[in-house]
Amino acid sequence: MNEFRLDWERAGRTGTSEAVLCEPKSAAQIDAIITHATELGQRLLLTRLGLRKFSRLSVRARDALDYDAVTRTAILGELPPARGTGRVAIVCGGTSDMPVAREAARTLAFEGETATLLADVGVAGLWRLMERLDDIRRHRVVIAVAGMEGALFSVLAGLVPCAVIAVPTSVGYGVAEGGRTALNAALASCASGLAVVNIDNGFGAAHAALRILGEAPRDSV
Amino acid sequence: MNEFRLDWERAGRTGTSEAVLCEPKSAAQIDAIITHATELGQRLLLTRLGLRKFSRLSVRARDALDYDAVTRTAILGELPPARGTGRVAIVCGGTSDMPVAREAARTLAFEGETATLLADVGVAGLWRLMERLDDIRRHRVVIAVAGMEGALFSVLAGLVPCAVIAVPTSVGYGVAEGGRTALNAALASCASGLAVVNIDNGFGAAHAALRILGEAPRDSV
Amino acid sequence: MNEFRLDWERAGRTGTSEAVLCEPKSAAQIDAIITHATELGQRLLLTRLGLRKFSRLSVRARDALDYDAVTRTAILGELPPARGTGRVAIVCGGTSDMPVAREAARTLAFEGETATLLADVGVAGLWRLMERLDDIRRHRVVIAVAGMEGALFSVLAGLVPCAVIAVPTSVGYGVAEGGRTALNAALASCASGLAVVNIDNGFGAAHAALRILGEAPRDSV
Amino acid sequence: MNEFRLDWERAGRTGTSEAVLCEPKSAAQIDAIITHATELGQRLLLTRLGLRKFSRLSVRARDALDYDAVTRTAILGELPPARGTGRVAIVCGGTSDMPVAREAARTLAFEGETATLLADVGVAGLWRLMERLDDIRRHRVVIAVAGMEGALFSVLAGLVPCAVIAVPTSVGYGVAEGGRTALNAALASCASGLAVVNIDNGFGAAHAALRILGEAPRDSV
Amino acid sequence: MNEFRLDWERAGRTGTSEAVLCEPKSAAQIDAIITHATELGQRLLLTRLGLRKFSRLSVRARDALDYDAVTRTAILGELPPARGTGRVAIVCGGTSDMPVAREAARTLAFEGETATLLADVGVAGLWRLMERLDDIRRHRVVIAVAGMEGALFSVLAGLVPCAVIAVPTSVGYGVAEGGRTALNAALASCASGLAVVNIDNGFGAAHAALRILGEAPRDSV
Amino acid sequence: MNEFRLDWERAGRTGTSEAVLCEPKSAAQIDAIITHATELGQRLLLTRLGLRKFSRLSVRARDALDYDAVTRTAILGELPPARGTGRVAIVCGGTSDMPVAREAARTLAFEGETATLLADVGVAGLWRLMERLDDIRRHRVVIAVAGMEGALFSVLAGLVPCAVIAVPTSVGYGVAEGGRTALNAALASCASGLAVVNIDNGFGAAHAALRILGEAPRDSV
Amino acid sequence: MNEFRLDWERAGRTGTSEAVLCEPKSAAQIDAIITHATELGQRLLLTRLGLRKFSRLSVRARDALDYDAVTRTAILGELPPARGTGRVAIVCGGTSDMPVAREAARTLAFEGETATLLADVGVAGLWRLMERLDDIRRHRVVIAVAGMEGALFSVLAGLVPCAVIAVPTSVGYGVAEGGRTALNAALASCASGLAVVNIDNGFGAAHAALRILGEAPRDSV
Amino acid sequence: MNEFRLDWERAGRTGTSEAVLCEPKSAAQIDAIITHATELGQRLLLTRLGLRKFSRLSVRARDALDYDAVTRTAILGELPPARGTGRVAIVCGGTSDMPVAREAARTLAFEGETATLLADVGVAGLWRLMERLDDIRRHRVVIAVAGMEGALFSVLAGLVPCAVIAVPTSVGYGVAEGGRTALNAALASCASGLAVVNIDNGFGAAHAALRILGEAPRDSV
Repeated sequence: MNEFRLDWERAGRTGTSEAVLCEPKSAAQIDAIITHATELGQRLLLTRLGLRKFSRLSVRARDALDYDAVTRTAILGELPPARGTGRVAIVCGGTSDMPVAREAARTLAFEGETATLLADVGVAGLWRLMERLDDIRRHRVVIAVAGMEGALFSVLAGLVPCAVIAVPTSVGYGVAEGGRTALNAALASCASGLAVVNIDNGFGAAHAALRILGEAPRDSV
Repeated sequence: MNEFRLDWERAGRTGTSEAVLCEPKSAAQIDAIITHATELGQRLLLTRLGLRKFSRLSVRARDALDYDAVTRTAILGELPPARGTGRVAIVCGGTSDMPVAREAARTLAFEGETATLLADVGVAGLWRLMERLDDIRRHRVVIAVAGMEGALFSVLAGLVPCAVIAVPTSVGYGVAEGGRTALNAALASCASGLAVVNIDNGFGAAHAALRILGEAPRDSV
Repeated sequence: MNEFRLDWERAGRTGTSEAVLCEPKSAAQIDAIITHATELGQRLLLTRLGLRKFSRLSVRARDALDYDAVTRTAILGELPPARGTGRVAIVCGGTSDMPVAREAARTLAFEGETATLLADVGVAGLWRLMERLDDIRRHRVVIAVAGMEGALFSVLAGLVPCAVIAVPTSVGYGVAEGGRTALNAALASCASGLAVVNIDNGFGAAHAALRILGEAPRDSV
Repeated sequence: MNEFRLDWERAGRTGTSEAVLCEPKSAAQIDAIITHATELGQRLLLTRLGLRKFSRLSVRARDALDYDAVTRTAILGELPPARGTGRVAIVCGGTSDMPVAREAARTLAFEGETATLLADVGVAGLWRLMERLDDIRRHRVVIAVAGMEGALFSVLAGLVPCAVIAVPTSVGYGVAEGGRTALNAALASCASGLAVVNIDNGFGAAHAALRILGEAPRDSV
Repeated sequence: MNEFRLDWERAGRTGTSEAVLCEPKSAAQIDAIITHATELGQRLLLTRLGLRKFSRLSVRARDALDYDAVTRTAILGELPPARGTGRVAIVCGGTSDMPVAREAARTLAFEGETATLLADVGVAGLWRLMERLDDIRRHRVVIAVAGMEGALFSVLAGLVPCAVIAVPTSVGYGVAEGGRTALNAALASCASGLAVVNIDNGFGAAHAALRILGEAPRDSV
Repeated sequence: MNEFRLDWERAGRTGTSEAVLCEPKSAAQIDAIITHATELGQRLLLTRLGLRKFSRLSVRARDALDYDAVTRTAILGELPPARGTGRVAIVCGGTSDMPVAREAARTLAFEGETATLLADVGVAGLWRLMERLDDIRRHRVVIAVAGMEGALFSVLAGLVPCAVIAVPTSVGYGVAEGGRTALNAALASCASGLAVVNIDNGFGAAHAALRILGEAPRDSV
Repeated sequence: MNEFRLDWERAGRTGTSEAVLCEPKSAAQIDAIITHATELGQRLLLTRLGLRKFSRLSVRARDALDYDAVTRTAILGELPPARGTGRVAIVCGGTSDMPVAREAARTLAFEGETATLLADVGVAGLWRLMERLDDIRRHRVVIAVAGMEGALFSVLAGLVPCAVIAVPTSVGYGVAEGGRTALNAALASCASGLAVVNIDNGFGAAHAALRILGEAPRDSV
Repeated sequence: MNEFRLDWERAGRTGTSEAVLCEPKSAAQIDAIITHATELGQRLLLTRLGLRKFSRLSVRARDALDYDAVTRTAILGELPPARGTGRVAIVCGGTSDMPVAREAARTLAFEGETATLLADVGVAGLWRLMERLDDIRRHRVVIAVAGMEGALFSVLAGLVPCAVIAVPTSVGYGVAEGGRTALNAALASCASGLAVVNIDNGFGAAHAALRILGEAPRDSV
């Protein structure tokens, strides 16, 4: 019996390619998936693939992948030519939130979308955000990435009219509660119309952005 | 000292008119806000205004409002002419979720957007959802409203390529935990790209939809 | 046996007069305390005394009290002459947070401190906060009162060098969790040096401010 | 003093053989239990026996066991001849849920029941579930294994009339909360009649299935 | 637009008739559902219909219903002839758990199954359970109903080989946490093979029992 | 079928008389229990019987009971002659904790034990506790009753060598979390050997004290 | 500055010797404490001293200690002659709970009390508990140690009249929640008069037992 | 693109120098920040820099830092001359709380403030606190550091009139819940006017103290 059935039809149905969440899978399972996709000539995005698990993959699989340790993502196959540029901005609260922000950027790139990445514009130093505001407003979708108390989400959504996707991160300690506080802050924001994804889910934010941009092929679903 | 400062500039900044969350405000405060807005000739959307509190408002305020007890919303001023139609679908899991779904519809109407409302298409009877799928796919944004275990969010997002905004509701008992379970289900969904708002927040979902549609005036922010 | 022993010595020990938390006490208990204090000629601050319970007190007790229904506080005895002015600013996120902000102001007044109260300066409309910033900075202590996601705390603490006391309020619904989210946001803030008190605890914030101002008689403790 | 008393009578009382939960036990304790069972000629199912702890057992114990690292189970003694086949289906949401699904299958095999295992039929790609539906319906008991938001439980229970046992898994991150969200989703399901066991408890689901099949000897209890 | 679509096909698909969870629905919605079902000549089970809401239904609806205030259930239409008897035992921990136990019994009766109800056999007085044990063992399915710490579930499942469905109730205070403690106790039980449903969900337990008994028509799904 | 079976044998088995937790029971159920006990000439302690529910009992039941609204307890039958005196001290943190403290005292009296009650000796005014210390130490068992942060438990247990039973109360608001914080403080105390009971459980504390005093008849169990 | 001040007077005040919780202390801190105690000729009980940290202590410290890896306890100095025997029974639910049970026994031994230890008498096999009941009843204090759902506490307290101290353990997974479920079960027990200590706190249970036995010197406090 | 933007202006705005929270940052990121600060000749305080991560920094970075493994802090640049002395007391509940207490002391030193550190004055041995009381009262600000049940906060705040900042620590196990219980105890304290910071946040407490002392340059903000 086969343990997995890759959802190649999913691209048709929802407009995105197949992605593999690696954290809960064994190296053997991931190896098998890569082999299978390679045989079919399918592209693959692997997320939450830690360095330790990556190094336990077969040489063949490792060679086939474009791996990035910081974002824990790997790409099988070529990146498509850039379909869109300047439509998505990724605004990052602090240096510590960068891996999640970059995971979103890489997920977008895998689907042909080039995002603008703005680093370290947290609210503790509000001027850093303020001086980038005009730049941010030019984008149709803003992905905001922040941990700790997540005040960035409210401040940003109060200042720009774009679609804003909040990605709370697990950065922080004590009552930050692994991202729970930033998540709840995004959901309970006094600035209306924020759209929120799971903690540390840069991948999901990128997919939400793609849905918003209408880049999912409509007819095939 | 004045207890409130209506944010008339907010419309310019983020593209939406002023809304007033009534639940934590006293009848006296709400009366004062309505009087102030009336004097300025400003439109106002009041949310979470329960029947009991509404009946404690001044006669003048009550007369000025278009009140709807089911959604606990009231509108001061005229509805704008419909700016857009057929762009937003509101899909509702069960009869019990209808007040939240209708709050979203009314919020959209307040901004000139006419939504399509599909009732009682929960996953316990999957055929009810399936036979509406083609209709749903025609919209750019889908607002999904569901309580209990919130399975509707994953099923729907796996079937349509549109932007999907999940509104978990507080419908259910025991471990439904006032909407927490549906909320977490939306955030932890195996279908990627779901955008989530606070529990019972039909208002917020509508605003997120407006941001996605680009109906927020860009230049004035 | 007497059910209570008023801590008249506490004023000596910690620099504040006696306060009575009324919520968990019966009307009979509160009546007895007021009678006892009246006999001794002692001043008393009663907090969390709801209108319904107040109306169940004896006529004599009600007549003796200066009651304020909005803040649910009552004062027995005269207010002292103003000892200090312009040292404490109370910054209030939204109209709904005003009862808590006013509870703080009234507690300070009970101890002879006149606070500056700034209403409705939440972060959804950042300009409202920005234009009051110079005024706020002139105070030694700032009490910030906000509910929902509590972003005000971080923004404010990032902008002023004063001692900042955060009072999270129970304003909000769903994941606002009765003030828990605003509380955690204050504690996990990326702006350092915030001091936090319990949810809706305007009384406690006022006492913290008095301790900071050194208005507690030092030698008698 | 002996630290354990194997419950050989339990088989008589409740119809299942002795099982040993190894996670909270030391290697020394497990070794002693195996020695004792070997002396008595008793069969034993060991669960949650990680590879690291297994490798710390005595050579003798390791040799006596049929160990499976993926499911972290070990069997002492022979498997009984297959008593029943085609009565239990195990439906598995994703590749990552397979270890738990296989733990259930192995527990059933230890009691002579051969289960049908269907892999990777999660709801994100609903067609994978739909095309297996006729097969699933042929079984008396369906064990559904899923993590993340656990939407599979509701969808499945809405489509088949069999007894459905939901096993939420700890697959997922952030608000998946180690399986809590999938667990609550199963318990709060809008599809009625779901029976639920503890997170990752494939063993318990198998035992529930055996109770349902009436394979526990009735007269001896 | 119609706010509800009764799932008359559900009976065919999953073997049970239509049930309506009334708690989150308005009296107007319930009235409409009853009218609709009456027109179609369909039977209906209404659950969690409190006395206050029942009394707000139309006279016509009230007259059509067989209402029971203790269990908060109402039945529209005739009870079917008893299909099965002596197959399901309902074991109830304390007097306070009786409404939930009776809700299960009534739900079974609605489907033609007559259950044996054993009251007040909690573990604080173990002899009460012990002397009923032979009686309990004669049934194929045991529904155990208990609140507080839920010790009954483990004791019972350790003594009988039947399928055991645990229904935790919200009876208790403090750390009983509205049934959470009894629920977790059932799920974490040291006695294996317990199947658990949501807090106070006597209805769901009955449906699980019907699934186990195979009373859901298999061919029509 | 009888909904309850009073555990008259329990007195023999565990040394205490029958007690009835009234909160989750209906007035009809309580009436039936009182009638039954009266017929048998048995004494009964009823706890958590609110004034509203008491007033809904039959006149006959109300007349037969010695009811106390503050502690929400009622006694059926005579109090026994005082068996022990001066062995149990009940130390109460604040006026608001008195109902729980008195519930403990009344439960002890029902079993013939007269307790010493010390009111309002919380740690905010440490001198109040200090000057009663010699008195407290004379008792074999100390029941400490406190809400809010429960610091009394640690301070007291650090100062006296007696058996100390901590009863956390639900007094407090916000993070006091209905007694959870006081409960956890008692359990996590840096002073060793504290024994803890459920929130607001004065009844349980009294029973723990009776077990400690050995007043439960040993031979009859 | 000295980082610690051993509380040698505590023995006088509360009747127990000094104990050191090692888990949150560094090896350097523990070394310093042992050196200090050795110089003063004081006895010391060290708890939660893991094997890894023990092996990082100085040779001198390690040589001075009687270390037990299973219970993670170490004793500095001689055990006192047995003061009492047969007064405390320790009843242990499962093999996995033994380390906590033995920690209690060793703590008692450190104070001269010899406890009776009964292993593996959980409720899943109720006969194991039943056949030891007469033995258990002979003791004045029973320490019950159990994890998972903690049903042992209720069953035991319902059967014996002794003082019963419940020690919930962190044994279990999923909803066992590191001992939280067993803890809540003990506190919410339907059997009255249970006294509860923190999760895995065998040490605290032993101290509670000593307080109950009156072995704390009364006059010196 | 640069991943960080050091907030050199922050000193001007809020009166403190730049601090870097190292826990969620990679060694590479920290190296880059140190290099950048060195080039600009800026001082830097690094917090939560574990020994393992410190040892992975470049030799150059390690040489440039004054590292302290116990507090996990490192200082780049010279300490300023002591600006103030004897104004801040740090009171530490137990030996295990010392690393957090020392983090506060070191943060103050980085800003030129010399604190008085009082170790091991927990409430289990109240005399240790009592004999230091006069010393403590001489300071304007008291930072109280305690874990477990955090009773120290209430006792201390009830005895001194100074500004009291509570730092709950993660010391403890079971229901201590990683510091949550001590945190809630501080926030729910019966002693009024306590100001609270996040769990283990010695750094934040020091900054709160500096704000209170008015050491943040006012004019530059």
